[in-house]
Amino acid sequence: MSPISAPAPLAAKEAASVFQSVRAQTETLVAPLSEADMMLQSMEDASPAKWHLAHTTWFFEEFILKPRDPDYRTIDDRFAFLFNSYYVQAGPRHARDKRGLVSRPGTSEVMDYRHHVEAGLHSILDANRDDANDIAALVELGCHHEMQHQELLITDLLHALSYNPLLPAYRDPQPMPVTQEISLTFTSHDGGLREIGHGGTGFAYDCENPRHQTYIAPFQLADRPVTNRDWIAFMEDGGYLNPTLWLMDGWATTQREEWTSPLYWWSEDDVWWSFTLRGPQPVNLDAPVVHVSYYEADAFARWAGARLPTEAEWEVAASLKPIEGNFLESTALRPLPNGGLWGDVWEWTQSPFTPYPGFTPPDGAIGEYNGKFMINQMVLRGGSCATPLAQMRPTYRTFSYPHQRWQMLGLRLAKDDTRG
Amino acid sequence: MSPISAPAPLAAKEAASVFQSVRAQTETLVAPLSEADMMLQSMEDASPAKWHLAHTTWFFEEFILKPRDPDYRTIDDRFAFLFNSYYVQAGPRHARDKRGLVSRPGTSEVMDYRHHVEAGLHSILDANRDDANDIAALVELGCHHEMQHQELLITDLLHALSYNPLLPAYRDPQPMPVTQEISLTFTSHDGGLREIGHGGTGFAYDCENPRHQTYIAPFQLADRPVTNRDWIAFMEDGGYLNPTLWLMDGWATTQREEWTSPLYWWSEDDVWWSFTLRGPQPVNLDAPVVHVSYYEADAFARWAGARLPTEAEWEVAASLKPIEGNFLESTALRPLPNGGLWGDVWEWTQSPFTPYPGFTPPDGAIGEYNGKFMINQMVLRGGSCATPLAQMRPTYRTFSYPHQRWQMLGLRLAKDDTRG
Amino acid sequence: MSPISAPAPLAAKEAASVFQSVRAQTETLVAPLSEADMMLQSMEDASPAKWHLAHTTWFFEEFILKPRDPDYRTIDDRFAFLFNSYYVQAGPRHARDKRGLVSRPGTSEVMDYRHHVEAGLHSILDANRDDANDIAALVELGCHHEMQHQELLITDLLHALSYNPLLPAYRDPQPMPVTQEISLTFTSHDGGLREIGHGGTGFAYDCENPRHQTYIAPFQLADRPVTNRDWIAFMEDGGYLNPTLWLMDGWATTQREEWTSPLYWWSEDDVWWSFTLRGPQPVNLDAPVVHVSYYEADAFARWAGARLPTEAEWEVAASLKPIEGNFLESTALRPLPNGGLWGDVWEWTQSPFTPYPGFTPPDGAIGEYNGKFMINQMVLRGGSCATPLAQMRPTYRTFSYPHQRWQMLGLRLAKDDTRG
Amino acid sequence: MSPISAPAPLAAKEAASVFQSVRAQTETLVAPLSEADMMLQSMEDASPAKWHLAHTTWFFEEFILKPRDPDYRTIDDRFAFLFNSYYVQAGPRHARDKRGLVSRPGTSEVMDYRHHVEAGLHSILDANRDDANDIAALVELGCHHEMQHQELLITDLLHALSYNPLLPAYRDPQPMPVTQEISLTFTSHDGGLREIGHGGTGFAYDCENPRHQTYIAPFQLADRPVTNRDWIAFMEDGGYLNPTLWLMDGWATTQREEWTSPLYWWSEDDVWWSFTLRGPQPVNLDAPVVHVSYYEADAFARWAGARLPTEAEWEVAASLKPIEGNFLESTALRPLPNGGLWGDVWEWTQSPFTPYPGFTPPDGAIGEYNGKFMINQMVLRGGSCATPLAQMRPTYRTFSYPHQRWQMLGLRLAKDDTRG
Repeated sequence: MSPISAPAPLAAKEAASVFQSVRAQTETLVAPLSEADMMLQSMEDASPAKWHLAHTTWFFEEFILKPRDPDYRTIDDRFAFLFNSYYVQAGPRHARDKRGLVSRPGTSEVMDYRHHVEAGLHSILDANRDDANDIAALVELGCHHEMQHQELLITDLLHALSYNPLLPAYRDPQPMPVTQEISLTFTSHDGGLREIGHGGTGFAYDCENPRHQTYIAPFQLADRPVTNRDWIAFMEDGGYLNPTLWLMDGWATTQREEWTSPLYWWSEDDVWWSFTLRGPQPVNLDAPVVHVSYYEADAFARWAGARLPTEAEWEVAASLKPIEGNFLESTALRPLPNGGLWGDVWEWTQSPFTPYPGFTPPDGAIGEYNGKFMINQMVLRGGSCATPLAQMRPTYRTFSYPHQRWQMLGLRLAKDDTRG
Repeated sequence: MSPISAPAPLAAKEAASVFQSVRAQTETLVAPLSEADMMLQSMEDASPAKWHLAHTTWFFEEFILKPRDPDYRTIDDRFAFLFNSYYVQAGPRHARDKRGLVSRPGTSEVMDYRHHVEAGLHSILDANRDDANDIAALVELGCHHEMQHQELLITDLLHALSYNPLLPAYRDPQPMPVTQEISLTFTSHDGGLREIGHGGTGFAYDCENPRHQTYIAPFQLADRPVTNRDWIAFMEDGGYLNPTLWLMDGWATTQREEWTSPLYWWSEDDVWWSFTLRGPQPVNLDAPVVHVSYYEADAFARWAGARLPTEAEWEVAASLKPIEGNFLESTALRPLPNGGLWGDVWEWTQSPFTPYPGFTPPDGAIGEYNGKFMINQMVLRGGSCATPLAQMRPTYRTFSYPHQRWQMLGLRLAKDDTRG
Repeated sequence: MSPISAPAPLAAKEAASVFQSVRAQTETLVAPLSEADMMLQSMEDASPAKWHLAHTTWFFEEFILKPRDPDYRTIDDRFAFLFNSYYVQAGPRHARDKRGLVSRPGTSEVMDYRHHVEAGLHSILDANRDDANDIAALVELGCHHEMQHQELLITDLLHALSYNPLLPAYRDPQPMPVTQEISLTFTSHDGGLREIGHGGTGFAYDCENPRHQTYIAPFQLADRPVTNRDWIAFMEDGGYLNPTLWLMDGWATTQREEWTSPLYWWSEDDVWWSFTLRGPQPVNLDAPVVHVSYYEADAFARWAGARLPTEAEWEVAASLKPIEGNFLESTALRPLPNGGLWGDVWEWTQSPFTPYPGFTPPDGAIGEYNGKFMINQMVLRGGSCATPLAQMRPTYRTFSYPHQRWQMLGLRLAKDDTRG
Repeated sequence: MSPISAPAPLAAKEAASVFQSVRAQTETLVAPLSEADMMLQSMEDASPAKWHLAHTTWFFEEFILKPRDPDYRTIDDRFAFLFNSYYVQAGPRHARDKRGLVSRPGTSEVMDYRHHVEAGLHSILDANRDDANDIAALVELGCHHEMQHQELLITDLLHALSYNPLLPAYRDPQPMPVTQEISLTFTSHDGGLREIGHGGTGFAYDCENPRHQTYIAPFQLADRPVTNRDWIAFMEDGGYLNPTLWLMDGWATTQREEWTSPLYWWSEDDVWWSFTLRGPQPVNLDAPVVHVSYYEADAFARWAGARLPTEAEWEVAASLKPIEGNFLESTALRPLPNGGLWGDVWEWTQSPFTPYPGFTPPDGAIGEYNGKFMINQMVLRGGSCATPLAQMRPTYRTFSYPHQRWQMLGLRLAKDDTRG
């Protein structure tokens, strides 16, 4: 049985192929970075690219090679201390806010570490073992783990580069497609007893389980995310100056942090600019707004006479009736053929990240993956331009603290449906 | 229509009588305090007793007398600034963490303020006005507001006195009844679609509305709160030392704050003592544990192989099947004829404080009463020895941040019911 | 031998008389205060008036009665813990920043404590003992200690009252004499080898000893302190906006604290106001500026093309050639017949508070009186309107951290004398 | 006239030669570092090696090339913002605590910047200009400035590497000479009127001027610094546990920071180890103690029944009577033929860093070099194993805040001389 998800695991051969492709994608992402770029850590919440390279490797080593391959030899025993993130059952670990001070091992040693572990993984997958299914399930988990870190690597880097007064681009600027204003309409959804959560085949994290019943009242959901044009209207209407729009903790945060726009925005000669992975860019009015906190999203919704959806509403809508869209935005890492219900920005829901009824984390350190974060955080649904496509599914739950903004976070409006 | 609750309001005469009795009870509570005691503010979350006396008075003045009685004259216009708590729509207000520095007006001037407003209230209630029902509803709200502050007054005072090295008692110590260990049993509850929330007659806050359907899986609920004896077993088993029992934010908090027991506890010659309203007392082993944070309650439940109930589970159980108990504890302000499902300690639930489906706060400043707190806080149910009886009802939702401990906070265990 | 100063000690009878008069003066100072006023503590650097009443009493009890009178009985043994300030050799003590939370003992109990210790003191002074001279010297030290606390009591209270939005007055406002602008002139002083420090008869603190030689270059000293009129010119010339005028730590402080004027000042309709012991008052243009930090004083002097004097320059000038003046100011506690070289405001010098050559603190806890503060602080000379006259002498050294402003701190300009 | 020091400036040819040699030495120091090592910034007080490379270059560009060579072209105008340290008159500058986030420009671009400015410097020095003497004086200043940063580069790096759990060595460990315990003796010095400060030919900073008279009482000075053996005796005698040995601010710091030994020390199997530029090394008992704060040095001296010397005492002794010694220590960057009075560790004096009588800083941004630091810091004299020999002279004054430890800071004892 997979420690994380019930569905039928990948066969060993498929697992090896997914593994190879995910690992290669991580290396592609860091290709434009210098050894110095690899070191950047701009806050405790973010990590250096080099650390992401190493930590995703440690995950395979710690949870597969060490416990299951008696012949496996580490490159350096001390890496377990350096590259464990938060798994207390996997032993002590380096201080999270000091990751940017680990200049040694250097990038090439970390790449050696990656390749050493990859060789070990391929060996064990090729070995035709009795526990091949378990191993394949763990490899799949490790690949999804690495995909999560691919997105973090990109958003952490963007945050760090924003502290460089030269505002360097991760990628060269390219001309962006012209976009058009899209009107906002709401789609009505019936209420009733519904099932949400993961239940079928394919990969899912523990926290997407178990599939369970929940009662939903009739509601309406917008057919596109909130755009930068919408957000500027909020700003121009004094949205950041009016405490009655805000939750109390949100108002305190916005005052203390002196927020007057989304993260990375500034105004120059009456034009709004934003710092992006392609360097400074004028804000694309019809792209989804991104880098807004829960507090801001909630205030915006109140200003708009609407509210954020619950995660159950979002999942029900996403499962039954995918909505078309056509967004392009300046930070895009990959072309988005359509906006869909997800894929442009993560969308804040009004649901705190809590266990589903009957949730039980797996035993051992893997059980720390999601369960211990189930407090003080809000669920986001969908996925962003930095999210690997293989991660997008209607049941996926990601989460952030309500004050965080450095991820690719946006919103979609909902309303109570008061017909009839 | 009442701005807060739909149920039929009190008649004016009843309102006057409730008002008189609640106001008198507040004065009874401060009777043992000196002018110096009245000034104590030991943290931003807590307020001086004198401020509670004045703020509860301001509430009636601001929301009833000023808008509805053109002949009403204030004693001092500046009191509106000094004694508004957090209602931004009621104008600017004094810094919350500086309330302990307001030596003037003194206690006697604040008592004059109370009596001045009380006279105004009685006038308007006696005036046989067209809006008598609205006024009575607001008076009822103000009385419940004052009852909430009665509990805060007591818990804030206990917190402040705990900083005095002489550990003075609010009330003289009295002999406490001998108690007996009570075994712990769980009662099973069926799952299904249920209604929760306030819907009948009688007073309720806005956040208890609307009554709505929710789906509950079968569950079990303990028939008594966790006791000090239980808690000591957790401590002795290393509960405060084992990170795998804790939520990540909880572990960080317990390490930073160096928690090794509930608030106000210390050990002396192998006996656990606690600072109470009656001064230092040996911990009563069979009283409900009190002054524990959500983080601690959650860790305890995990250690015990159980979990905290959701607020829906709690309310369903409390509505249908009141459970008997027989607790007495050293901090008791009033004798508790039985422990009931509530009344000894507030009980943490695993439910974040979020709006019920369809929740709409009333217009104006009164709408700030509960709605703007709906983030980062967890719901507690029941009531404590410091809670006025008139406030206890199955639908009542109070809330605290998960790190807070100075209120009378405890817990009751729940479990999934996995019977066929 | 006196533990503090070499000069001939008071006779026992004189000591009793000084004692009685100093103790009475403290009670006079607190006469206008309510029990609530007595509790105020607005920052860690400041203490409640009630604490000053008790601590000055503890000093006599701890250093005279307890070690020398075997028959002396304390009122409450725990007061030693509550009212010790910083004497580690006198045992453990209460947290300095929590003094405002000690509502009990109340004021009347503290007054009982005062009178109990006073009775003990008179007994021991009347007893015709062999160690009468030593006791008289300690009483004299305790009286000077209490006079220092009289000034602190007043300035701490002013600071606390400034946090009350009602801006209450310690004393009733009274009409202030009209003053006139006084021109600023400098007096030249020869250089050479000089003696400074206390050496004669009469009381002095340990840190004023030993009298010693020091070499001084020729210098000029202003014959009046800097006035509010001077200070406003500095402000209007952008003094608070120009980093080149400031020490680096000073500029960082002024930016962080957002200083744009002396403490307690604000501008209303183009008039500068200040909060004083007589409540809000328009700034008296020709009174000495007060409540400025070392950083501000130093920046002002640089702006004025001058510098602050060293403490040796100040003492040499004060000893040989008292300068006349005629200041009156709005915070005055006592009429000042002339401004003199001291008596209006404490005057910042450019001298860090360091030991004089050959300085040796007395043995025991009394040795902690001044010595352990000899780091990070700057010397002030003179005295303020809140300083008892009996404390003013040319050798007196007081000290503050360069960022502090709540004492009665001002400045007088000096210059190098480059003649011939 | 040189903007910094009066003495005859170098001829242009000499200046070019010194310049070349100092610049080359900086490159030698960074030779062992990777691009990642170059980025490390472990606290606001410290800077990345790459920043030191660039800032020392900016100094020559800003103060010589830009104002004096109209043909000079910058490589990148934005470097002036990135690499100015604290000269407000030279324009705005990057946040000091964010220097470690500047991954671009990379090391090779910074080396290009260095070589570009070096070419410009050689051009202007070769040009046979009327202002050749002024330029040579500025070049000399810039070289001394760069030598100061050479020491900082090393100490900042050591600090950053200490945060790497792998404790990497800057240089390969080498066997250290065996040393022998050296007894401690004191040499007596007469008192009297003396001259200190720089007055002759050769380079000096502004703050070493003017040479001036000062009166010194007879004193004794130890003929060697305090050693690690001495320090361990202090530790074993409870030196870090006894508040009566400490200044009040020192005790507060040592408690807050939990200091129980010098920086970088730890104990393993009853042996004291230290992290050094050669990685972890057992503490060399007879080397001078290093990485101790003023607070610790002062407490040690009090424990030893001695005191720290004043800077005047130190300079008088160093000028008249160099003392032999023979120290070797594990962090040594260069062999020390003898310990001398300086050269092993910087030695704390009891003198705050204040202006000498008649001190006037030069006009313009260069005037910010030392003057604005003349508050809150203590003078150290001598020089350390990381100090270039060309910087060592009896009049040199360096300074640190009393809590700082990451420089190569030690101490030498002094005493009052109470003979006859």
